[in-house]
Amino acid sequence: MNRDSSGNLTMTFEEALQQKKQEVDELVFGFLPEEEGYAQMVKEAANYSVRVGGKRLRPLLLLETNQLFCEPAVPEAKPLAVALELIHTYSLVHDDLPAMDNDDLRRGNLTTHKKYGEAVGILAGDALLNLSMQVAVQAVYIAPDPARVAEAIHILYDKAGMDGMIGGQTADVLAEKQEEAIEADKLDYIYRKKTGALIEAAMMIGCALAPKTTRQDVKIMERIAGLVGMAFQIQDDILDVEGDEETLGKPIGSDARNEKSTYVTLFGMEQAKKEVNRLTEEASELLAVYAGKDSFLQQLIASLAGRSM
Amino acid sequence: MNRDSSGNLTMTFEEALQQKKQEVDELVFGFLPEEEGYAQMVKEAANYSVRVGGKRLRPLLLLETNQLFCEPAVPEAKPLAVALELIHTYSLVHDDLPAMDNDDLRRGNLTTHKKYGEAVGILAGDALLNLSMQVAVQAVYIAPDPARVAEAIHILYDKAGMDGMIGGQTADVLAEKQEEAIEADKLDYIYRKKTGALIEAAMMIGCALAPKTTRQDVKIMERIAGLVGMAFQIQDDILDVEGDEETLGKPIGSDARNEKSTYVTLFGMEQAKKEVNRLTEEASELLAVYAGKDSFLQQLIASLAGRSM
Repeated sequence: MNRDSSGNLTMTFEEALQQKKQEVDELVFGFLPEEEGYAQMVKEAANYSVRVGGKRLRPLLLLETNQLFCEPAVPEAKPLAVALELIHTYSLVHDDLPAMDNDDLRRGNLTTHKKYGEAVGILAGDALLNLSMQVAVQAVYIAPDPARVAEAIHILYDKAGMDGMIGGQTADVLAEKQEEAIEADKLDYIYRKKTGALIEAAMMIGCALAPKTTRQDVKIMERIAGLVGMAFQIQDDILDVEGDEETLGKPIGSDARNEKSTYVTLFGMEQAKKEVNRLTEEASELLAVYAGKDSFLQQLIASLAGRSM
Repeated sequence: MNRDSSGNLTMTFEEALQQKKQEVDELVFGFLPEEEGYAQMVKEAANYSVRVGGKRLRPLLLLETNQLFCEPAVPEAKPLAVALELIHTYSLVHDDLPAMDNDDLRRGNLTTHKKYGEAVGILAGDALLNLSMQVAVQAVYIAPDPARVAEAIHILYDKAGMDGMIGGQTADVLAEKQEEAIEADKLDYIYRKKTGALIEAAMMIGCALAPKTTRQDVKIMERIAGLVGMAFQIQDDILDVEGDEETLGKPIGSDARNEKSTYVTLFGMEQAKKEVNRLTEEASELLAVYAGKDSFLQQLIASLAGRSM
């Protein structure tokens, strides 16, 4: 805790982040199924995939962006935030499969297919994507303006689909099978889509759901989130070289072992760190029109650039 | 062509079915992505999976059920029908994967993962499920009553999810790994969920989208579709023993080779055929309140019991 200028106790950014993350955890867990019946195992596997943890960055960005434009956040923001996290989680479950990245560990725990078998791993991913739609559509019922919610759902699945995350994932998987180093513009596409698209969805949806925002506001959020997403992915590449295995919950050096082209292998470590800072500063400048430099959202974005996990 | 009692030319049921199927094909194809850009291969694979064919039974049932209650069908029925077919298609793509049923052929063609590789097969399935939501949400924009569309979308993903199709799929996959024969009540669960759930969704959504229907009507459609779905799956078991490989587009006898428990192995061929007729007759009786015995929908349901593919 800190004291503000009037001597009142205030939370540090880290404390606030921890509290908000816990609120998101509880919100998401509330939509998970009871583990019962003949389909018990897929429910267990789906719940395991979600409960095993994560930064909850995307729902946090969505809810915080919504609060920039309306205080408190509109109730429809919650199901959309949960749907977004479920989509992110399913994408990790499928990404870890043997035919894809073939990873045994994530965040220090067994990956879903390692724990429940490959068939149930595939089905649990499907189930989480399906559940995201069951959750997202609930927002239509509670919204005073169904057209805004429809727009938000449209953004969500557009960014998650073949011209968004799945497109980036496809290009990434196919590039890994090639012998030669990846071209810079394809790497840019993969980062913008595979990592950037859902971060863009987060800030765009948060903005689009607020009652008085315009399409222009949503476009600016897309631009800011694009910068944040790119910085986030390059920082990931840096951590795969310089990170701490225990903090990360997985072995470092996997990109080098897999001879994977990354921003670091293409442009070098020094340039990578410069680029993370440049992107983060540009995002912060653009966001300053909407959020003061000491706001939680600004601090969250700054913290991503310096993160260790 | 036939002539009716006034001497006018009328289409036979087979001709009408062919024409309606072609209309559904065109409708569905209209929502498929352009095959371009870095994500071209997943788009090709998704389009291939849809274009390779199918009876289009579920969208047909949805649209025909809708027309029982309002003529012409409401415009929102079309995106929902397409979404339903996309969900059915993704479920087949994932079902064919090596970790699941490991099938090389479907409808006489290579399965998606055999043609495009396993990674792209997984991603194409994900992409089709994601696309279903992109299509379904369009119905919210064009509907005069967004609450009815939200209800329809809710039914769709409830029936497709862990307590529906994915639940049945999970129980099926796990049962196949067991040594002993399956219990009758688990087989019943698998058939109701894996096959029945999307057929229920078709008739329920068709009904729910019509402006003046009640929840009671939707419940009756669920019951009718449940009977139709069960008859459909038992007929599938029969065809796996007695079908013609060329007509089916895949080898028969796969259940026996895989020592898979089916209605036929549990209760015998004679009882299986009796049950298909009993279920179909009961469905037809219940439907008679809404649709005359010579209506297209009644003929469609009757034709499923006697089908050869």
